[in-house]
Amino acid sequence: MEKSEVNMIKVSIVGASGYTGEELLRILSVHPEVELRHVTSRSFIGQKIQHLFPNLISYVDLTCEEQDIEAIAKDSDVVFAALPHGLSVPIAVATHQAGKKFIDLGADFRLNDVEEYEHWYNVKHASPELLKQAVYGLPEINREQVKQADILANPGCFPTSVQLALYPILQTDMVDASRIIIDSKSGTTGAGRSAKVDNLHAEAGENFKAYAVAGHRHIPEMEQELSKVSGSEVLVNFTPHLLPVARGILSTIYVQGKRKLDETAIRDLYEKAYADEPFVHVLPQELLPQIKHVRGSNHCHINFRVDERTDTLIIVSVIDNLVKGASGQAVQNMNLMFGLEETLGLNVPGLNP
Amino acid sequence: MEKSEVNMIKVSIVGASGYTGEELLRILSVHPEVELRHVTSRSFIGQKIQHLFPNLISYVDLTCEEQDIEAIAKDSDVVFAALPHGLSVPIAVATHQAGKKFIDLGADFRLNDVEEYEHWYNVKHASPELLKQAVYGLPEINREQVKQADILANPGCFPTSVQLALYPILQTDMVDASRIIIDSKSGTTGAGRSAKVDNLHAEAGENFKAYAVAGHRHIPEMEQELSKVSGSEVLVNFTPHLLPVARGILSTIYVQGKRKLDETAIRDLYEKAYADEPFVHVLPQELLPQIKHVRGSNHCHINFRVDERTDTLIIVSVIDNLVKGASGQAVQNMNLMFGLEETLGLNVPGLNP
Amino acid sequence: MEKSEVNMIKVSIVGASGYTGEELLRILSVHPEVELRHVTSRSFIGQKIQHLFPNLISYVDLTCEEQDIEAIAKDSDVVFAALPHGLSVPIAVATHQAGKKFIDLGADFRLNDVEEYEHWYNVKHASPELLKQAVYGLPEINREQVKQADILANPGCFPTSVQLALYPILQTDMVDASRIIIDSKSGTTGAGRSAKVDNLHAEAGENFKAYAVAGHRHIPEMEQELSKVSGSEVLVNFTPHLLPVARGILSTIYVQGKRKLDETAIRDLYEKAYADEPFVHVLPQELLPQIKHVRGSNHCHINFRVDERTDTLIIVSVIDNLVKGASGQAVQNMNLMFGLEETLGLNVPGLNP
Amino acid sequence: MEKSEVNMIKVSIVGASGYTGEELLRILSVHPEVELRHVTSRSFIGQKIQHLFPNLISYVDLTCEEQDIEAIAKDSDVVFAALPHGLSVPIAVATHQAGKKFIDLGADFRLNDVEEYEHWYNVKHASPELLKQAVYGLPEINREQVKQADILANPGCFPTSVQLALYPILQTDMVDASRIIIDSKSGTTGAGRSAKVDNLHAEAGENFKAYAVAGHRHIPEMEQELSKVSGSEVLVNFTPHLLPVARGILSTIYVQGKRKLDETAIRDLYEKAYADEPFVHVLPQELLPQIKHVRGSNHCHINFRVDERTDTLIIVSVIDNLVKGASGQAVQNMNLMFGLEETLGLNVPGLNP
Repeated sequence: MEKSEVNMIKVSIVGASGYTGEELLRILSVHPEVELRHVTSRSFIGQKIQHLFPNLISYVDLTCEEQDIEAIAKDSDVVFAALPHGLSVPIAVATHQAGKKFIDLGADFRLNDVEEYEHWYNVKHASPELLKQAVYGLPEINREQVKQADILANPGCFPTSVQLALYPILQTDMVDASRIIIDSKSGTTGAGRSAKVDNLHAEAGENFKAYAVAGHRHIPEMEQELSKVSGSEVLVNFTPHLLPVARGILSTIYVQGKRKLDETAIRDLYEKAYADEPFVHVLPQELLPQIKHVRGSNHCHINFRVDERTDTLIIVSVIDNLVKGASGQAVQNMNLMFGLEETLGLNVPGLNP
Repeated sequence: MEKSEVNMIKVSIVGASGYTGEELLRILSVHPEVELRHVTSRSFIGQKIQHLFPNLISYVDLTCEEQDIEAIAKDSDVVFAALPHGLSVPIAVATHQAGKKFIDLGADFRLNDVEEYEHWYNVKHASPELLKQAVYGLPEINREQVKQADILANPGCFPTSVQLALYPILQTDMVDASRIIIDSKSGTTGAGRSAKVDNLHAEAGENFKAYAVAGHRHIPEMEQELSKVSGSEVLVNFTPHLLPVARGILSTIYVQGKRKLDETAIRDLYEKAYADEPFVHVLPQELLPQIKHVRGSNHCHINFRVDERTDTLIIVSVIDNLVKGASGQAVQNMNLMFGLEETLGLNVPGLNP
Repeated sequence: MEKSEVNMIKVSIVGASGYTGEELLRILSVHPEVELRHVTSRSFIGQKIQHLFPNLISYVDLTCEEQDIEAIAKDSDVVFAALPHGLSVPIAVATHQAGKKFIDLGADFRLNDVEEYEHWYNVKHASPELLKQAVYGLPEINREQVKQADILANPGCFPTSVQLALYPILQTDMVDASRIIIDSKSGTTGAGRSAKVDNLHAEAGENFKAYAVAGHRHIPEMEQELSKVSGSEVLVNFTPHLLPVARGILSTIYVQGKRKLDETAIRDLYEKAYADEPFVHVLPQELLPQIKHVRGSNHCHINFRVDERTDTLIIVSVIDNLVKGASGQAVQNMNLMFGLEETLGLNVPGLNP
Repeated sequence: MEKSEVNMIKVSIVGASGYTGEELLRILSVHPEVELRHVTSRSFIGQKIQHLFPNLISYVDLTCEEQDIEAIAKDSDVVFAALPHGLSVPIAVATHQAGKKFIDLGADFRLNDVEEYEHWYNVKHASPELLKQAVYGLPEINREQVKQADILANPGCFPTSVQLALYPILQTDMVDASRIIIDSKSGTTGAGRSAKVDNLHAEAGENFKAYAVAGHRHIPEMEQELSKVSGSEVLVNFTPHLLPVARGILSTIYVQGKRKLDETAIRDLYEKAYADEPFVHVLPQELLPQIKHVRGSNHCHINFRVDERTDTLIIVSVIDNLVKGASGQAVQNMNLMFGLEETLGLNVPGLNP
């Protein structure tokens, strides 16, 4: 696919040497309407990014730069930040002042309430004003706001998998929203590309464990957004686990019915909710979601069962944490923000097997 | 360790070519008080079992025989059966008639109620009389009965991981036993050693999925045994998943408190319950269980957290599904049934990393 | 990317339910100039192929048909066969008689010599005449012939990884071509999508082994093609191994220098040979190939070292066995055969990590 | 197995927090004649070693100490060092001066020639005198010297897998010893337990690569020891690769015949060479070695094929790099040095699957 280089969207990435940065490059390098301009990485200044990620050889030819955000913003139409929490705010401020769009893959603009942010992330928010302008970007739920966004908060990986699974049912009053149990399992890229003994292959391979039980930072994000959908206060019990796979999140969600649940009616509800969505698919009744079926893609697969013995709705969803859970969704948001077709550059099946 | 060959327990295994059979051989071949006598396998009659499982070379020298159970029982002190459900009953009958002990690694003697068995397993039980004599063998809960058993029903892998996790708390009235949510994850050996496309490395590796949602056959076993512990009827919602590891089960269990839960008090309760157990360990507060820490061993690691926001007790347990979840526990039961030290042949740490 | 449906190439796949069939569907479903028409699979007649491979949901909507090859060929511009050896010949004959192009992903048209084929594959070749017309399709070596082909023999996975690695050096007289040592390692998809105990996750995961030592069927194909390049008879010693990964082949090749080898000169040679190739990349000196860098892509990465102590050139190449080693290369050949841009539908980076 | 605590061998480990240290603890904690006394680790002083490695809970109760080697040696019968090269020498000197035995799992005492050591390891050797007294401990080759050793150099992991594979054939004059090609594949524990991005699960999992091509530090060790066996100067071309498994080394070795090779005669030679060895097994002709068959065990499996087309002997050997390739072999050496039965504490089958 030849790129025209005329009227291309100029894109820069701050923090390109982590996994979500790498994934942005993988997707954007073949996006037909994007021209990659600048990549920054404090650890690799002066190095070719395609030598750090040799899968990008022949697709990207860029050198890691310092974070001179004014200059970068000036030469870009949109800046993506893939940084640890707390570090995105100054990048956002500078980009916004330059009149360019900003997409944050980190957590700095996800929580509406500054105090909630400061409580869970244990850091002061440097720009509560900008936070107010930020749009939370889960297109399946709030597509119209995304189109207008200048500052976009890209959702967390776990919250994406959970919200898409719960969105249709929480719009009804069939279930008890006050204690939703979420058992999520994530691949090791979710732990980031920093050197830690716990994430070595010899430790995490052929292994499985829970972590951050009852205290993960994605809880307030889930509750904030699910409460908006539900109309009442949603409370979740969330337990993440570390899978010995590189990519993928599977969330198993347990919701108690307020009365007898009807699986057929719920199927109808889910199928209608996602009938026109290009990336969210309610599977045929007999097929349960598998993370490999969405690997490398922006798709989300969902299915569910009603356990009549305990009046419980069990919903299972899968996404690729780096794509629909991060960089793919960020590009989906970018497409909407720039008036492009929403699926541009994202329309590929999962890499299975 | 030299074996004396005097007064050794003569052991035979019916169905030795599956994973639990293989694991019995691995453990028993270095058990100081055991002499392996016969192995049967319909598919490999006449073949050396150690050529099927070359890790056993220099430890085992046995040829797969036909299932001539009368002859085998006559030449054995105890017969282990590692067979699909429905096939163990005639083996048990013949062994029992020969006056020898019988240990079943399958499901045929686990459910006390014949109708319950026939409902969940969809097969007629050929000896309801023998079923009445069978002892369910989870030593940490009913050690004394095990010592007297002639027909021993070795627990299922998931039920073992779940019962050990719930045993202390269900003896109290702190929690609601009427809707326990169990999210379990098992390695691929749990699916058995038969050739199925779904279990190919190219399918199950780098993958993760739920299966048998709301309908797994281990549910009645869990509810039967947990109800005995609890004193009231226990109802579980059980969802198994398939992990891309060969061995290991991790169960994450969610129990709602009837009133405010006190993590310190619960810790005290668990530590006391398992203080003298050689194979069950409540980990220090800060350590969460990992399946690799018990791989290849008969140990079970347990820890938990109280989520005060939702009054939920989250318990995590890990076992090796082939050892404490099957063959190791069967040997532990055998030790008890023959008056040996309970840990004989099983006292090894997990193979980590 | 919207497909125009005007002047699209009509494609059918015989044997679509194996891994190379699945991979053809994954690639062709988003190829901008292709319209998928028919898929056949003896085992799944009447079933939706996208339910067999749910990653294709929303990309493919086709039902597995019987092998009515006359009807299928009539309604196609090109037929791909992804079948075990021996079964492609009748499909090729019928397709050719219908005046349509045929691309064989199996072995039936790779060996020029009928006797050689019958010796190594132990089956009679049903159409030696058609074999004579077949073109061996490794575009980097014989692009021009491919463009003219009606019957195309798509190379084997190991031979592709080996030929691309040796092509530049065997055109010189620097090395001894009479005893080349090839140590190859392949992912488990190379063993196909049929249910065998040896390929279960519990067997092949966390494992590694050699197989078919000194007797693999890809040997005559390598020697035939390498001898053409070299101009003298090439003899290879080839040992394949089974890696615990789903996709990827890495070949490590040892060639003895006839005289002192100069790594810089060889680098120059390789870089020139592949300077204009879109899919073959000689990596910068310090980077060694990794299979994950080409996973899911049609790329081949190559690098090498001269061991001065033993005058040995050690060449390492990586491909994805299902893409450049099978279905991707087949599409590359199709593009050439239909006068399309060679990279169409294949221009994506590897899925890393 | 109860330990008597009378006349137990008092063992201390310097550098216990790496993988070979952990593995020593796993093995020695259930060794019937060993009493563990001290463990040191600079990074974890004051911490319980069994909390670092929870598989050891209930087997080990020791706190990581500082390296006060005089005090430790005084309170030990033997000191094991599991340290990076260069750091073992002072520990050896102090232990030797205290009159206690020393076993080095590192590289400091493996090369007989000080200059060779300093050339390959790029560090000055602090005690060439002690180096002269060191015994290289591969019991299958030099058991008698090991029994007399005070300073024992435990072989490297790759050299162990290679020497056992070549030992019988290099004692003959059937093959050309001047250019042996060794293609080895190691699990990720071989890279050590230090945090490096390259060894993260997300990088090394589902991946495979060669490294240190033509320049690995185990080359001089192999050539030194193989030359002793051969009687002539052996030259090897050695290429290691990184497997996505935690444990295991498989070496595929290519040796050219000086004349026509006879596989049956070679089989006879190998079987005789290892007939009485407890840990080295020449497999039946039809079985090829697999790393999982020796995982967690001190065993080595060997098999081979003659490729008559190229007069090449292809030998394949497998070991567990942490056991026979490191800590298990160190315990085997300790047993010999203390006059114990050689297999004590090591007589267990591999953990398969």
